[in-house]
Parts: sequence; structure tokens; C-alpha cells
Amino acid sequence: MVPHLITALTNPINELEQHILDAMPAIERWFRLEWMEHTPPFYCGIDIRNSGYKLAPVDTNLFPGGWNNLTEEMLPLAVQAAQAVIEKTCPDAKNLLIIPRNHGHNSFYLSNLKQLERIFSQVGLTVRIGSIDPSLKQAKTVRLPSSESITLEPAMREGRRLVLPQFDPCTILLNNDLLAGAPGILEELPEQHLLPPLHAGASVRHRVHHYRAYEEVAKRFSKLLGMDPWLIHPLFEVCHGLRHDEDSTEPHHADSDAQILDCLQGHADSLLSKIRKKYKEYGVHERPFVIIKADCGFSGTGIVRIHDAKDLGQALTDLSHNSKGQAMPAKTLSELLPREIVLQEGIYTNEQINDAVAEPVVYTMDRFVVGGFYRVHSAQGPDENLAAPGAAYIPLAFDHAGTLPQSGARPGASSPNRFYMYGVIARLSMLAASYELESADPMFEGDL
Amino acid sequence: MVPHLITALTNPINELEQHILDAMPAIERWFRLEWMEHTPPFYCGIDIRNSGYKLAPVDTNLFPGGWNNLTEEMLPLAVQAAQAVIEKTCPDAKNLLIIPRNHGHNSFYLSNLKQLERIFSQVGLTVRIGSIDPSLKQAKTVRLPSSESITLEPAMREGRRLVLPQFDPCTILLNNDLLAGAPGILEELPEQHLLPPLHAGASVRHRVHHYRAYEEVAKRFSKLLGMDPWLIHPLFEVCHGLRHDEDSTEPHHADSDAQILDCLQGHADSLLSKIRKKYKEYGVHERPFVIIKADCGFSGTGIVRIHDAKDLGQALTDLSHNSKGQAMPAKTLSELLPREIVLQEGIYTNEQINDAVAEPVVYTMDRFVVGGFYRVHSAQGPDENLAAPGAAYIPLAFDHAGTLPQSGARPGASSPNRFYMYGVIARLSMLAASYELESADPMFEGDL
Repeated sequence: MVPHLITALTNPINELEQHILDAMPAIERWFRLEWMEHTPPFYCGIDIRNSGYKLAPVDTNLFPGGWNNLTEEMLPLAVQAAQAVIEKTCPDAKNLLIIPRNHGHNSFYLSNLKQLERIFSQVGLTVRIGSIDPSLKQAKTVRLPSSESITLEPAMREGRRLVLPQFDPCTILLNNDLLAGAPGILEELPEQHLLPPLHAGASVRHRVHHYRAYEEVAKRFSKLLGMDPWLIHPLFEVCHGLRHDEDSTEPHHADSDAQILDCLQGHADSLLSKIRKKYKEYGVHERPFVIIKADCGFSGTGIVRIHDAKDLGQALTDLSHNSKGQAMPAKTLSELLPREIVLQEGIYTNEQINDAVAEPVVYTMDRFVVGGFYRVHSAQGPDENLAAPGAAYIPLAFDHAGTLPQSGARPGASSPNRFYMYGVIARLSMLAASYELESADPMFEGDL
Repeated sequence: MVPHLITALTNPINELEQHILDAMPAIERWFRLEWMEHTPPFYCGIDIRNSGYKLAPVDTNLFPGGWNNLTEEMLPLAVQAAQAVIEKTCPDAKNLLIIPRNHGHNSFYLSNLKQLERIFSQVGLTVRIGSIDPSLKQAKTVRLPSSESITLEPAMREGRRLVLPQFDPCTILLNNDLLAGAPGILEELPEQHLLPPLHAGASVRHRVHHYRAYEEVAKRFSKLLGMDPWLIHPLFEVCHGLRHDEDSTEPHHADSDAQILDCLQGHADSLLSKIRKKYKEYGVHERPFVIIKADCGFSGTGIVRIHDAKDLGQALTDLSHNSKGQAMPAKTLSELLPREIVLQEGIYTNEQINDAVAEPVVYTMDRFVVGGFYRVHSAQGPDENLAAPGAAYIPLAFDHAGTLPQSGARPGASSPNRFYMYGVIARLSMLAASYELESADPMFEGDL
């Protein structure tokens, strides 16, 4: 149920990986039962890191924009999954409107849109791209490097529906993470299916809710397999209430920079010592590190990495300079930092492609793993963020020679599917996103 | 939603094919709505013939035995479909028992079993092969040409369940067409899912029920597309009651050979003249022919082909000789022939691979087209049955270069997916099988 793709890591399967492979029947059954209770996110892109001793997700994108990195060979799987999801949400659909992000329309992103258009066209839907960027006043056709072209049209409201000229969609697919908040044009669309829903938007999504949901998923999964959840779960801590609630009736009163530093240092110290303890337990000789992220409404660029709590001051000072190294207008940390900050255990990646550090990205649609690719960065180290300017994307190839280990097959006659394990971790993360979205759903009445 | 496979026919897309390609969005939506009302057969193998002017199914096998002919590349699609069907029928399944046919265990068939075992193992089920052949007294392991091995064990009853030692399956997959009738060992298994169900067995299945269901499906589909149903539907007639009902209280009284010949000749004449009229209408310059098959309980070997009603006597005499050309013990036609006989319009195939006549076979699982291959026969003509001794099977390759025609793509930048059309015809046939099985289901209370 997970395609057999050739991974960069060719080391022998380690103990953790073998454990997951051996438990495959139990794992698949567990997921089947989970999906009876929970609705998977429409689609996801999950960043995974494999450090050899630990295999864990580090980011779960609910508006994945790299569909162009899936090879032609993976498309039938994506189309089949798309068919299943359309059958479920709107079987009598004729039209699908895709809402792209408003900015960053480079040829990679436009090829991603083209790929989504292709996948849903093959399901038999008429697909058009409707932008909600207010600066797009009329339809615009762009030629892609593949020599195909793509047309972006300004989406408009017609009463309670979002439409294009002569095009009234039943389903609207958001490929825009709504980091700046959900615009009015998307509000109150009770007659159309907006997927993913507005409460999945980056401006309202809390990283900490996802991490807590993943912690729960990882614990239950690890219990099933009889293993330590740490092997698949990045530890985390949260620094709450750096500033007072803006909606509070109390007069606005920002914490001082010293208070903020104190809070962050305390949590960083605590987290680093937990990781150190685990490294000792497992005989890991690497240097623990911590990733500091905003809880909400921050993109990947505002991420700080520290190996020692005392580096925190410098790291935050770096944050207060812009990318050209120039000091920004004087701001206190409280002005600069988001209200809540998450500290997450950093995971080393020990995958490399052509000497560049690599991390697998797994793409899912509905409950299916439909493909993946590598994000590689030749200028970043194994403990650094690869989703930084200069990253490249390398499609994964199908491994035609290998089949999953078969009982009865002679040793060596079948090769284990390392990508299977990445698919398992990705699906755990997707399941956590499903829990997270159910909690965030204003309409949800289920039992969590 | 249909894999893009390279077909043998490289002629330009003809009018009928173009019509189907153009209507793809309407077709896919129509299927989605049909599958909301009807349950697809667990799996099917559908033989298709493309004569250029006509594209039609000629046989729908509900117990397909050629899964080994699907390439490694197609497996992920089959596994994903298997996942969907297991989720639907028995999500908490741990074990799957496959019941193979009792005879004809050559290496091709055993490789087919191995492939089914592989597909369902990848869904996460523990798969074992349980034979219902009474002559199999103990487990038997056979080495396959791939150097894998497969173990067949005698299935046994334990109260109301079919089991193997230390193996109690929730789902039982029949890969045995039960041509000799359902044995007692399969009766009354109320706690297990037996798929396909016993009423799909070859001994109780009526070809004419399938043909009538297909006629209905083809008419509705053709109305949707505004085309003549004949272009996708083989005409047929039925010769009823060649012998009196054995269950009748009347004394047994067989029709005379002359009466049987009369009945058959009358129907053959009528059918040939209908085909001739259609050939004239479409400017087809080929010679019409008719295929004569038993309605029920007959395998593919008992098939007679005639181009003229007056050849019928000779054809039936040929039938009364065995394959070595020796006369069989004197039997009257009424003893020799099944009670009801179907006459079906013959469809020329104009596909060839290496000068051998070829027909595509499309494999489905649940509502998904998961792959296909060609049945080729170098000694048979374009109007002959290719499922005869000497047939070979050629896997279809994925066409990585081609994508479905995209609006906005430059002419020539995308190639049409001829296999898509075969997938449409196959799904029409599968839908007809779904109608047929619903009618035959003693438990079914739906509205047909």
C-alpha cells in the first residue's frame, strides 16, 4: 500500500526499521481501524528525517506545493487516490476549482498547479485555477518549461458561491496555506466543499496542537509495537504567553526581553537535557540540538537552531537582523517574537544524495501514500533546515526489482522497502493532523 | 484513473475512440454515481476486442487467474485498490485465505496465486492458500520459476468457519470459478466474508443474465454519449429450453436433434442478418460471424464459431468429437448440448503483436482498473477465440511519455490514452456483472 521507491539511504536496515517492517500486518490493520474513526486530511506533504537510530516527521504541510516533483510513474496512484477522495466528498462533481497561493509563482510552483490540474482531470473533472490574489484582475496564461501552459483566473463571489466565468464548482481545492489569514472571499461558502477547510489555514493552525496530537499517536503506535515512542517522536516544549493576550481586557503589557529569554532558556535547557539522556540511553554520540519555531502563523524562515541554551541570546539577535545582515529597526524581542514558541528536538538526517544532505518528503492524498521525493541542500549540514533558499528536489524512482519481504522467499530474493517505513511515519503524522483538524473544527462533534 | 499503458494498436484514434475520450468527464462522473448505487465485483478480468469500428467486451471473468501477467509497475495500483476493498469489507481483518482452483496448477497459475498473495500481503494481511481439492491431503510447497515458493494447504471446516491450522481468516478470496458447483465445504459460512460470493460461481452463473445486464448498461451509457449502443455492445440471441426442465414433473422428453438444429439455425440466421444490416450501415466490409456458447456451466472450450447458419450442422458435429478428432461415444445433440445456448455477435480484433492476433485483457479490483495485458495467439485468426491452447500473455508496459490530452497543451505534446478506452469498456462490463450479481443474490433487496 506504499509504493516501493528507491531511497538514498542504502545502509542495512537498522533495528528500528526492522521492527516496523516485521510489524507490517499489525500496522496496516491499525491504520485501517483508525481511518474508520477519523477523516484523513485531503492531502499532505510530510518531511521525514532518518537519523539511523530515530525516524520522525519534522513538518506536516496541509497545502503541499511540490506535486510537480512526483514522477509520471507515480501519477496513477495519485489519480486513483483522487478518485477515492472525490467519490467520498462530492461524487456528482463536474468541476473542481483550485486556489493557488498568492505569491511565489515561479515555474516550480506553476508546474505543481499543472500537476494537480492533471491529476484531477484524469479523475474526470473539469479543472480551472481561480486565484484569490486581489491584484489579479484578469485571466493570465503562463507557458511552463514543459511547454504546457496554465491559466490563472480571478475567482469571484456569486452570492454564497465562489465561481469563475461559466464555471460553478462543487469542490474547491485550497493550495494556498492562508498564512495571512482567510480572506472574506472564502468565508461563508455553505454550498461548496472547501478542502482543506479554513481551520487548516496556517494563520490559525497551532504547531503545538499538531505536536500534541502526534505525541498521542506515536505513543499508541509504539505501544502496539512494544517500543519506545521516542524512536519516532521528536520531544518538544512550549513557551507560553510571551506577551499578554491581545484580546484581554487588561492593559497591554509586554514581557521584557529578559523575561522572554528566561522562559526560552529554561525550556531549552530542559529539552536538551532530556535529549542528552535519551542519546546516552541509546549510545548516540551526536550533539543534541533544539529547533525553535513559532507556534502559529510563521513560515519556515523564522526558525532558529541551537545546541546550547546559552546560544539562545545570539540566535535571537540573529533573528532580529534581516537576511542581508542589516540590523532591523530597533524592536524588542516581545515585538519580534510570536506569542507562543515551540521548542522541538532536532533530528539529524543521515541521508545524502551526491554529498548533499537529503530528507525524504512523503506525499499523501486521502489515506494513501501516493509518492515522494527528496529535498536536498548542498550547503546545509545534517542538523540544519533543508527547506531553505537553495534547496533542490529530486524525484524518487520506483524500485521495480524489489518486493516486500515474502515469507518463503529465499534470502536476498526480495529487498525490504525502506520507503515503506517512511510511509508509515508519514501516515502517523497525517493521522495526527486528522486529530488536530477534528479538534479545530467548529462543526466537529465527535469523540476525540 | 486508468493507467496509461502502451497498447498494440498504433493506428490513429478512430471516431468511436475519440468520442469516448472527449466525453471523459461525463463518463467518470457517471461511473462515480453508479458505484454509489451498486457494489463492484471483488475482481474481474475482462476480455476486450477492438475491431476499429467497434469496441466491446467478449468475456467477463469473475475469478481472474492471470494476475501474474501484471507487471511489477502495476502492483502499487492493485495494492491500493486491495486496500480500499479490504477497508470496505473487513477493516479489522488480519488473515486472508485464498482458495485456488482445484486443477491446472501449472507454473503460470501458481505464479498468479503468488501475485495475489503478494498484493494482499502488502495490504498488511497474513495470506495463506487453502485448497478445497479433496485430493490434497497435506500441505505442499512448490518452487516457482521466479525461485520463490508457494505453499498450498488443505482447507478444513471448523464448525461454521473455514480454516487452516492456526489460521482463522475473516475474509476468504475465491480464485476458483466453482465450475463443478459449490462444494459443501463452502456452504454456510455466515461468519466469514466469502468473495466473490457463491452465486458468482460458474456453475450457477448465466451468461444470458450478464449479456442482458450489459445490454442495459451499454444502452444507458450510449444515451449519455449520444451514440449507437451497437458500437460497444455485441448483439445476442438465446435458444431456450433445448431440453425439458429436469426438475419438471412432466416425464423427461428430450428435443430431437432436428428440433435443436432448427432452433439454433433460426436464431443464427436472425442474428447474422442483424449484424449484416449494421455492417452495411457502418460500411464494414467484413464477414459477420456468430459465437455459440452455453448459457451456463460451460468453460471456454465448448465454443463454436459460424459465419453462416448452414454451417451449424457441421459445427455441432465437430463439437461431438473430442479434441483429438476421435468420435465420442454416440450421443444425441440433446445429450451433448447444455439446456440453454447463447448466440453472440462475433467481434473481429484488429490488434496484432509480432504478427499474432491479440486481444487486451483488463484487470479490475473493486471499482478500479489496475492493469492489463494482451492475450495473443499466433495460430488463430482475428475472428477466432484466442483463449485456446497455445495462447500467450504479454504484459502491457506503462507509457511514461504520454499524458491524457490536456486543454491548452500544444498539439502533439500529449498522446491519447488508448488504454483509457479499454478501461471504460471493461468498467461497463464490470458494472453489468455488478447488476447481474445483485439479481442473483438471494439476500439482495435493492432496487434494480
